[in-house]
Amino acid sequence: MSLQDFSAAEEQAMRLALSEARRGLRGANPLVGAAILDAGGRVIASGYHRGAGHPHAEVEALATLPAGTEPATLSGATMVVTLEPCNHHGRTGPCAAAVADAGIGTLIYASADQTQAAGGADFLRQHGVRVRSGLLGDEALDLNQRWFKAKAAGRPFTTMHVAQTLDGLIAAADGTSQWITSEAARQDSHEIRSRVDAIIAGTGTVFADDPRLTARTASGEPASNQPLRVVMGYRDVPEHAAVRGDDGRFLQVRSHEAEAVLKSLASRGVAHAMIEGGATVAGAFLQADLVDELVLYLAPMLLGAGTRSTAPLGISTLSDAARWRWDSTGGGHTINLGADLRLHLEPEPDGTMPAVRKGH
Amino acid sequence: MSLQDFSAAEEQAMRLALSEARRGLRGANPLVGAAILDAGGRVIASGYHRGAGHPHAEVEALATLPAGTEPATLSGATMVVTLEPCNHHGRTGPCAAAVADAGIGTLIYASADQTQAAGGADFLRQHGVRVRSGLLGDEALDLNQRWFKAKAAGRPFTTMHVAQTLDGLIAAADGTSQWITSEAARQDSHEIRSRVDAIIAGTGTVFADDPRLTARTASGEPASNQPLRVVMGYRDVPEHAAVRGDDGRFLQVRSHEAEAVLKSLASRGVAHAMIEGGATVAGAFLQADLVDELVLYLAPMLLGAGTRSTAPLGISTLSDAARWRWDSTGGGHTINLGADLRLHLEPEPDGTMPAVRKGH
Repeated sequence: MSLQDFSAAEEQAMRLALSEARRGLRGANPLVGAAILDAGGRVIASGYHRGAGHPHAEVEALATLPAGTEPATLSGATMVVTLEPCNHHGRTGPCAAAVADAGIGTLIYASADQTQAAGGADFLRQHGVRVRSGLLGDEALDLNQRWFKAKAAGRPFTTMHVAQTLDGLIAAADGTSQWITSEAARQDSHEIRSRVDAIIAGTGTVFADDPRLTARTASGEPASNQPLRVVMGYRDVPEHAAVRGDDGRFLQVRSHEAEAVLKSLASRGVAHAMIEGGATVAGAFLQADLVDELVLYLAPMLLGAGTRSTAPLGISTLSDAARWRWDSTGGGHTINLGADLRLHLEPEPDGTMPAVRKGH
Repeated sequence: MSLQDFSAAEEQAMRLALSEARRGLRGANPLVGAAILDAGGRVIASGYHRGAGHPHAEVEALATLPAGTEPATLSGATMVVTLEPCNHHGRTGPCAAAVADAGIGTLIYASADQTQAAGGADFLRQHGVRVRSGLLGDEALDLNQRWFKAKAAGRPFTTMHVAQTLDGLIAAADGTSQWITSEAARQDSHEIRSRVDAIIAGTGTVFADDPRLTARTASGEPASNQPLRVVMGYRDVPEHAAVRGDDGRFLQVRSHEAEAVLKSLASRGVAHAMIEGGATVAGAFLQADLVDELVLYLAPMLLGAGTRSTAPLGISTLSDAARWRWDSTGGGHTINLGADLRLHLEPEPDGTMPAVRKGH
């Protein structure tokens, strides 16, 4: 279906839905936005998916309809949504059913759902909803390019965080690293911990810093959601290591391969993993092009010498550099956070690593 | 004179003058802003100093007075300015005379001028202008803290630029560095070159890259202002090196000491110097706490291994890190520039280096 099959009002509404989608947080679910047009082409509602555990965009949009919207209005209305509505019972009910139940007359989606949640379009048609697709489909696919890639590979979506100086160091020459970043930046990274299913660190980090790897609130209390604490590497994690905790949410994966670690986590139902570090772990995931999102806290200081943020990546010349792009979803690509900057990036769509880009 | 000697309108006007001042570009001259209040306390004009070669803030403010402003209005008016008006003939005429000639009745300045340009307040009093001082003086001093420090030391103000990857590298493992940053970022750094009196690179950079170190416009033509091209280090710069050029604007300083190089430049009338690099030169200036402004272009790529942006700084532990703060003057501390971010920082007021901070 080509662009001329859609009205200007529909296209404008889809652009609104895309910008709504960009407000969400990347993770276990794709970013999705939706808007509802009345028969006259006026936007009467919109919404977006805030992240795992929150309602899907279609349901959010339905919830913002003006009070007392008549069934007749909805049967003449069009919902535009950036992704085909889901048709499965995940953490929330299927959106296709919610849209049909609401009495929406027409649904337009931008990109098809290629995952286990697919089938929403067929369900809607069977329930009398007119369905069209492909409006701004490329933009919608681009928005979630890495999420689709992770899903296709059957692995968790990954978020790497790095807290570094202006000159790219995560610890001073003597190993001290507490704290490079401000309280506000550290709290932000605890907020990410509280949203993921698992957090991954290396044995080197365990031996050097003995971190707890728990998610804590601003007041220092444990957050209500705690990630699985994953240590990768061959050295035995000591019995007394803080990362073991006492809640059973600890796992050691005896591997240095990022892919093997993610496969192990996928088999345990992990949909979103955070890569905590240090440099060896970061290097393993970066070199394998298995980092889907990068959150980089930049402290306004220089050390001149110390521990690099990542191990060597096998890149020897500039044209082979790992390429990223600024990611403005979830509040902007650059945010002031206490004394620090928080930078947000995602991989270039053709992959960060040259071997991947060249199709090897 | 204490704060209660000033009216709310005067304080508000000085805050406006400070925010005007922050629009300017750091360099040979301090950042200065001015505003003019009529007898009723209403702001009728404001202005700021754009940078070396442009009119001073007082003259800019006078130029924005409404057409046909009556002499009687000005004799009842108050000019607030963030720095004592100058009383010397530099690149522009003395501001004190311009203010007196305009017939301004009262002048309030925030911080005194401690340089050769001082004496403006006395001149104004002698010419019948009522003069008061000290309103928001600390903020005004803080705004130009490094400029005053450079002036007091009798050395040029320095701007260091660094073009690096997210992981703090300025070249790949094989030495390739053209280009880490985008065309827009490189053009921005040529704009800085065109504003400075001198540009400093090390012999290592000359041998590695054979740079011209000229300022070029967006179309690749030579800019109208060309800095003195300074190479520091002991190795002889080859006869055929591009940096020599054919305009006589080349100087080799046989020293690795940042202070010695700046002293040599000061004796040649250089008021603003740009530190081009590489890592050894950057390290020498940073370690001596002789960088007054840092412009850091951050390209969204990772190399994992390569040349660090600065040589070691003699810092071994985190509490001794060189501390900077974000500088929002001249357009904001973070600007999107092509595919890159341009970060702008200045040293913490007590100095970047621990030896300086501890008063050694």
